[in-house]
Amino acid sequence: MPNSSSPIGVFDSGIGGLSVVKALTERLPNENYIYLGDTARVPYGTKTKSTITRFSIQDTRFLLDRGVKMVVVACNSASSASVDALRSEFDIPIIGVIEPGAQAAVKATNSGVIGVIGTEATVNSQCYHREILKLKPGANVIAKPCPLFVPLVEEGWLNDSITRQVAEKYLTELKDAGVDVLILGCTHYPLLAPLLADVMGKGTTIVDSASSVSAAVESLLAEKGLSNTSTSPGRREFHVTDLPAKVSQIGRMFLGIDDLEIELAEVG
Amino acid sequence: MPNSSSPIGVFDSGIGGLSVVKALTERLPNENYIYLGDTARVPYGTKTKSTITRFSIQDTRFLLDRGVKMVVVACNSASSASVDALRSEFDIPIIGVIEPGAQAAVKATNSGVIGVIGTEATVNSQCYHREILKLKPGANVIAKPCPLFVPLVEEGWLNDSITRQVAEKYLTELKDAGVDVLILGCTHYPLLAPLLADVMGKGTTIVDSASSVSAAVESLLAEKGLSNTSTSPGRREFHVTDLPAKVSQIGRMFLGIDDLEIELAEVG
Repeated sequence: MPNSSSPIGVFDSGIGGLSVVKALTERLPNENYIYLGDTARVPYGTKTKSTITRFSIQDTRFLLDRGVKMVVVACNSASSASVDALRSEFDIPIIGVIEPGAQAAVKATNSGVIGVIGTEATVNSQCYHREILKLKPGANVIAKPCPLFVPLVEEGWLNDSITRQVAEKYLTELKDAGVDVLILGCTHYPLLAPLLADVMGKGTTIVDSASSVSAAVESLLAEKGLSNTSTSPGRREFHVTDLPAKVSQIGRMFLGIDDLEIELAEVG
Repeated sequence: MPNSSSPIGVFDSGIGGLSVVKALTERLPNENYIYLGDTARVPYGTKTKSTITRFSIQDTRFLLDRGVKMVVVACNSASSASVDALRSEFDIPIIGVIEPGAQAAVKATNSGVIGVIGTEATVNSQCYHREILKLKPGANVIAKPCPLFVPLVEEGWLNDSITRQVAEKYLTELKDAGVDVLILGCTHYPLLAPLLADVMGKGTTIVDSASSVSAAVESLLAEKGLSNTSTSPGRREFHVTDLPAKVSQIGRMFLGIDDLEIELAEVG
């Protein structure tokens, strides 16, 4: 049985979820982490709910086999498609990025007009829409898929004039609608946060689900009596289902570290 | 046993391979076709040789189970990673897009400087490089990965100023090197052909592997005595491993038809 010193499992469709591991490690440095990135089947965001759920169940099983005490679904597409299915399939705490992101957005908005950007799967699922309306029934939620942002981040064009033009093209309708909070509904987007904040202008608060989910993980661990009481820094293990050179390179960019040891895993 | 009236199998990592089906149908309208797009695991182009080969073997087996007389590997990444493995694993004619594309490029070049654009996997494999040097030992081959082109095509931004700027950024080094032939080493790129031709300028011939492979399929069928002698238009069957709404929409764009019936397949 997992106990408080067991690791926290984190999975994502690829390597973007490392932005969640980074935020978790900053907030909870004494916890141990096991990460799984399903890089052989990445991305999930263009695929259907049933396919994403099948993959997510396999990812969760991989983490459970390694004795994790909790699973964080770092991927927005997987969170929206499959958190409910995972909760009925497995018996440990499972937390996705949608609820914490929605809570942070509702807290931050004055106008009640909230923008959400993400993949096709996340936007089509209307998951943020539903969560926000539960918390703030009169809110106006405007969601927009931005499929070019992930490849732009992976090219490393974080502050390029082309990326700025793409952002302007995608975000115009959100600006025109008067949104005052923008939820970054994809783990790759935090790397574009400065540029997106600039395009949206001063009146807009950027909500990054990586930070919001870390706070939620901390509360849930405390509530369940599962917080690690160790006072020394935890271990981190990184697994991926396919390991091309670019994965390590982008992984280092996400974690902001120079060396990164990643193991190859078989899943599915 | 397959015979001359058996269908031709075509597989791709996704739906881009429909550009190959379109070219094949134009050249060989009386053949029957079975298409498989592995949309649950798309793209292949960011993944390793061993993962791509594992997926390609599963895709080929799916087509063989449906009685095809030949397999066309429509995906450049799969062609470069796994055609050799498929030929040793299976006993029917297997044809990839690399050799026909290389042949067409060698025929078209005057300067001997040939440009290749494609995914990371295709470019890193140096597959076009090797094929071209077999045919023209003194050739200078310059290859450049263009990962943003696929999502730009899938957004439908075929003639957008952003796409033009991305093309200029990617292609400058090829232009500066004096290439007079540009191989479109990815099935999505033919939709950008007019824009790419314009960016490269008048002196450059564009080689589209979809057209080149159709000519090669015609010759190989004749050589093996497997050409369909029917005089009525053939049937086409389309299968994908995942079917989000966008797949049908982009599929229609690739085939240039208004209705498209696609079935869901289980592979892997």
